Parts: sequence; C-alpha cells; structure tokens
Amino acid sequence: MARRNDHSREELQSMAIDAARAIISQEGIEGVSARKVAQKIGYTVGTLYQSFENIHDLVLHANAFTLSELLAELDVAAGASRDPQQRVLKIAETYLRFAEGHERQWAAVFRHSLPRGHIMPDWYQARVDALFALLENALRTLAPRRSRQSIQLASRTLWSSVHGICILHTGDKLFSDSIASPQALLQSLVKHYLHSWLNEGKSG
Amino acid sequence: MARRNDHSREELQSMAIDAARAIISQEGIEGVSARKVAQKIGYTVGTLYQSFENIHDLVLHANAFTLSELLAELDVAAGASRDPQQRVLKIAETYLRFAEGHERQWAAVFRHSLPRGHIMPDWYQARVDALFALLENALRTLAPRRSRQSIQLASRTLWSSVHGICILHTGDKLFSDSIASPQALLQSLVKHYLHSWLNEGKSG
Repeated sequence: MARRNDHSREELQSMAIDAARAIISQEGIEGVSARKVAQKIGYTVGTLYQSFENIHDLVLHANAFTLSELLAELDVAAGASRDPQQRVLKIAETYLRFAEGHERQWAAVFRHSLPRGHIMPDWYQARVDALFALLENALRTLAPRRSRQSIQLASRTLWSSVHGICILHTGDKLFSDSIASPQALLQSLVKHYLHSWLNEGKSG
Repeated sequence: MARRNDHSREELQSMAIDAARAIISQEGIEGVSARKVAQKIGYTVGTLYQSFENIHDLVLHANAFTLSELLAELDVAAGASRDPQQRVLKIAETYLRFAEGHERQWAAVFRHSLPRGHIMPDWYQARVDALFALLENALRTLAPRRSRQSIQLASRTLWSSVHGICILHTGDKLFSDSIASPQALLQSLVKHYLHSWLNEGKSG
C-alpha cells in the first residue's frame, strides 16, 4: 500500500537502497526492478523516482554500498600485515573471501552496465578509485622508486588476474578441484608476478 | 507450426543446437528457452525433448560448440609461434580476441550452471580438458623437467588470470582506459609470471 510523507527524502533513499540490496542478495541483480523495490518499501514507483533518476541510479547506489564494504575489509587486511609482499597477498585473499561471502552483491557490481551514453557518476568512480589506490599503495611500499605508470599497470594486472580466479571460483568454473584451491592459485600468481616485477625494477 | 518426421533425429539435434547458438549470440544465454528453440526450428517442445534431456543438455551442446571453436583458434595460435614463451602470450591474446569476437557465446560458457546434482557429461569435460591440455603443453615445452602438478598449477593460474582480464574488458569493467590496454595487461601478466616461474624451476 502506498504511503505518503511518512519518511524524509533521505530516509526514503536509504530504505530504497536497502531494499535493492536485499533483492540483489536474494535473487541477484537480474531480480531488481523499480516495481519490486517500491513494493518492498511501501511507496509508489513515482515516489521512488523522485529520489532516483532511474533504476540504474538506484543499482549504482546499492553497488556503491558493496564497494564500500569491500574497501573496509581490504583496508583491514592491508593494515594487518607489516610485510609488504604479504600485504598484497592478504588483499587478494580478502578479495576472494568477500566474493565468496557476498557472492550476488559482488557479482552485481560487475554485471551492471550503464545504458549507452550514461556517464559513471563521480561519487561512484571515487569508490572505484579508492579500491585501486589501496592496491597501488601496497605496491608503492614494495617499490617506492617505480614510476606511477608502472605501479598502475602492475596494480591493474594483479587485480584483474585475482578477479579472474575469484569469478571462476564463485561460478564453479575453475575446473581445478583436483589440482589446487583458489587460494593456491592466488599465492602462485602474487608470488611469481611480484617476484619478477620487483626484479625488473632493480635491474632497470 | 509444428512439423513431424521431416528431419532425422540427428538433423533435428543439429538444428536445435544452431537455434540455441543463434539465440545466445543475439540475446545471451538468459534468452534461451525450450519454447523459443522449438519455435525457431518449427517443432514442438515435446519433440525437442526427445533429443535433449532438458534445456541444460541443449545449452551444454551449444556451449561445447563454442569451446570447440575456441580450441580451434587457440590451436592455430599455439602452432604459429616457435618461441615457447611467445606461444603462451599468443594463446592469451587469442583467448582475448575470441572473447571480444564471440562475447555472448563466450560468456554463456561461464554463465551456465548445471542444476544441483547434475554431473558434467564426459563429452563436455573432454573439451574443457583439451583446452587445458593446450596450455599445459605450451608450458611443458618451456619447462620440460617440471612436475605435472607444477605445470597444472601454473596453467590454471595463468588461464584464470587471463580470463579475469578478458571478462573485465568485455564487460567494460577494467577501469584502465587511461592506463593500459587489455593486451598490455596480458603481456605484463605472462611476462612476469613466466619469468619467475621458470627461474624457480631452475633453482629448485
């Protein structure tokens, strides 16, 4: 049943984001619709659209929440290890654990596409940047003399590789049960990539 | 309109697989249904289910076709390079090009899940194994003395890392436009991973 004026605009926004997050965690991003979110919070779709430009705007807010949760966990992981090489591995392992523990929310971040012509809002991009900054900082501690460009390239390579292991593992498509755990793949990746990347820095 | 007895069982199977593949390439795996496939080939759903156990069986056949196409392209790539390290990079680059050129078919292989309790049929697993064998062979040429276990671990690590770069790139989620192309990430990954992995083999 539709309600009116029971909640402030901010309260309504927050309720709608919570509702979208609940739908994502139960059904995945494909289950989210304005009708379902409106129904869940007891307002009309029209009222919902006074707070969000469109359904993509709402999904971005739900996904931004997931990115903030992920960032918080990675921050703890990065802070927990004093050895900078171990720190990179801890970040990767925490990324995997987050993907396992919040599978549908995590997948929603990567499955959602903005319609053609829509530009990623700054507040969302800022969260993506913060995640990359965390990994770049860990690499900079390891190799303080490397150029910004080199550190960015290494951080993107490592992150997308870690992501590959995580997405195949959560989708049950790693085909490696009898060979190695996803953790063992992460270890092999981080160890070998960093070992050679750091040596290249020393010689060049 | 439903037809009867116009085609042999084999012809009907092949038509249904083609129809499923066409739907996947137009709408993605989410668009495939028994009703749509039956309609496309002009038979009833009942007739379709005389050839396929269920819709998953049909999708697996369509995906197996994609895996065979991918294997054929990777085979050519692996054969085209005499330098074994270059060969691994060529395999990775061809995987990326295939993902770009057959985006929905490629994604369908990884988005499809068998229902709980269903076991992957042998004929499908054989295609997956053939893909891994190709990469394992390339690594074995590089490091003929490494154990089977070590080669399998390295091949799974490399493949899932390459996969991560490809899936983020095709989903427009690499967030690296201003930093590096997906090809540059593949190069960085393969170069550094192999460099350290091969050195580890020499010292141990």
